[in-house]
Amino acid sequence: MAATINRAWKLAARPEGRFKPSDFLWVEEQVPGLTDGQVLVRQIYLSLDPASRGWASSAAGYLPPVALGSVMRGFGLGIVEDSRSPTLRPGDYVQGSLGWQTHAVVDDQAVTRFDPDPALSLDAYLAVFGHIGATAYFGLLEIGRPEAGETLVVSGAAGAVGSLVGQIGKIVGCRVVGIAGSEEKCRWLTGTLGFDAAVNYKTEAVLSRLRRLCPGGIDVHFENVGGPILDAALACIALRARIVLCGFISQYNDFLPPPGPRFLGNLLMRRARMEGFVVVDYEERYHEAIGPLTRWLTEGRIRYKTDIVSGLEHAPAAVNRLFDGANIGKLLVRVSDERES
Amino acid sequence: MAATINRAWKLAARPEGRFKPSDFLWVEEQVPGLTDGQVLVRQIYLSLDPASRGWASSAAGYLPPVALGSVMRGFGLGIVEDSRSPTLRPGDYVQGSLGWQTHAVVDDQAVTRFDPDPALSLDAYLAVFGHIGATAYFGLLEIGRPEAGETLVVSGAAGAVGSLVGQIGKIVGCRVVGIAGSEEKCRWLTGTLGFDAAVNYKTEAVLSRLRRLCPGGIDVHFENVGGPILDAALACIALRARIVLCGFISQYNDFLPPPGPRFLGNLLMRRARMEGFVVVDYEERYHEAIGPLTRWLTEGRIRYKTDIVSGLEHAPAAVNRLFDGANIGKLLVRVSDERES
Repeated sequence: MAATINRAWKLAARPEGRFKPSDFLWVEEQVPGLTDGQVLVRQIYLSLDPASRGWASSAAGYLPPVALGSVMRGFGLGIVEDSRSPTLRPGDYVQGSLGWQTHAVVDDQAVTRFDPDPALSLDAYLAVFGHIGATAYFGLLEIGRPEAGETLVVSGAAGAVGSLVGQIGKIVGCRVVGIAGSEEKCRWLTGTLGFDAAVNYKTEAVLSRLRRLCPGGIDVHFENVGGPILDAALACIALRARIVLCGFISQYNDFLPPPGPRFLGNLLMRRARMEGFVVVDYEERYHEAIGPLTRWLTEGRIRYKTDIVSGLEHAPAAVNRLFDGANIGKLLVRVSDERES
Repeated sequence: MAATINRAWKLAARPEGRFKPSDFLWVEEQVPGLTDGQVLVRQIYLSLDPASRGWASSAAGYLPPVALGSVMRGFGLGIVEDSRSPTLRPGDYVQGSLGWQTHAVVDDQAVTRFDPDPALSLDAYLAVFGHIGATAYFGLLEIGRPEAGETLVVSGAAGAVGSLVGQIGKIVGCRVVGIAGSEEKCRWLTGTLGFDAAVNYKTEAVLSRLRRLCPGGIDVHFENVGGPILDAALACIALRARIVLCGFISQYNDFLPPPGPRFLGNLLMRRARMEGFVVVDYEERYHEAIGPLTRWLTEGRIRYKTDIVSGLEHAPAAVNRLFDGANIGKLLVRVSDERES
């Protein structure tokens, strides 16, 4: 096999505030030879996720920080081009932590093989299945535990996770209110995704809008944002509410987190539960979510949108779209063409 | 029966900040005649609790606000002096919501009869049993769910609830760290109650002390105080920690709650659960706590302290001792002598 060149973004510096171009270093290197059990994967789509900002910092999170000088961490999908694995063959589709690079050499255990459904677009495997779908599915159903007739509020509602959470909430039978940052996003939530209402946090007073939209209080709140939005939701929780803490994207660029919600005491008064959730804890159970998510997608009960940036070279600029609220739906980088060889 | 005069503190104004003398009005009134099902109770001990401040405000909490012009709400115990109830007779001991008054006319359903154990002091029925013991017992065991070998931190540790929580934690097999506001309190916790360590939040840096005392992180945090103490605990939580929100005494005098904890995001990173708890939800189950608490008390495995103010007339001044951190153990008002008639 001819020598393959891998192009990659390595982490060059710990970011302060927003990601800067100088936090990354572009490298082109020959792909090393495989050892037993390894495969070479050509990446097609790279997922850009808010968690990237935490991974790039030096603080210990639920995964160790990305070491300076190594390829930036990222989830993606691609095609096996070369294999010394007994379980994976060239041409197989896989997904896993492939990193910000065109070609990944990984252990066969580190990726999951999947058979693309010809009725579905390949981007669905990152936008609806994989870690995004699992986050929405397990976070809402196992931590939030919504019941039919309850009121569900989701922040970051036009994002990859939030848009699925609201739609799964509708399938469960909830009244669903989404919080998002533009009129276009709000129209998508109520017009296309079937949310009952949407609040534009950039132009509306979130607390008074939530009070009006949730007269019986919020039974389940799914938090992707943190800060004043979480505070407004806490002010409106119903008795025995459940708050799923899934993300704090409004604070990921802060060195020190800002002061927290004033209305935390409502957790006490209303005997509510607030619980943190990280999807990696559910990796062994992703398969449980795939069946229902596939069925809902093919039945048209859930819809998704992808915001695709073409070319790995744009990844450092594109990732900031998440923190600017610029994307609608799942933010992906098209690293190579599916049919390229 | 001769006419009995009831002396009472009625709520005259909604407090702003600390309770002021002018928030209460002293009245002396003839006790009304009983109707069927009612009893007249002479109060012996009145319990003063942090919750008083919330009950006196106009905000809806887990109980309706005390109406202006009515007797201030409070839990107490006393002796039945007259009865038109088929279930309670003169001489019976009862406890319940008797209010800030010497003589209460109440429905027999509104109080609970008990037979004082001659081996115990009567104040134990408010300091260890009743609502205080139930708060510590159910709050710690059902919401906190500590396991042997885990690290338990309790704030307001020298208060009525906190001191029991720490001792029950020791019985369960936890390492117990208490946070309190004086050297005397800290000495009582470690010297008499068997806590493993105590932090004086008025003279020590709570966050760095907790980091040192809990190197493996806090598994269960029982919060009675709120504010910076809760924030310090959140900064130190272990994976899958449980935080019991039982009280926010540091904020009850505030008109608007101050900003909340900066380290709330740790709930997410460490997949922790924070849950509010109000003991009135467990009223039907108080009896489950009485057996174990009585056994532990008679075996000397739990100890208690009462801070007793003599004379109902001092109640408005005494209640502020709670917010000043002046009391150690359970704050009570001796309303009348047990053997008086």
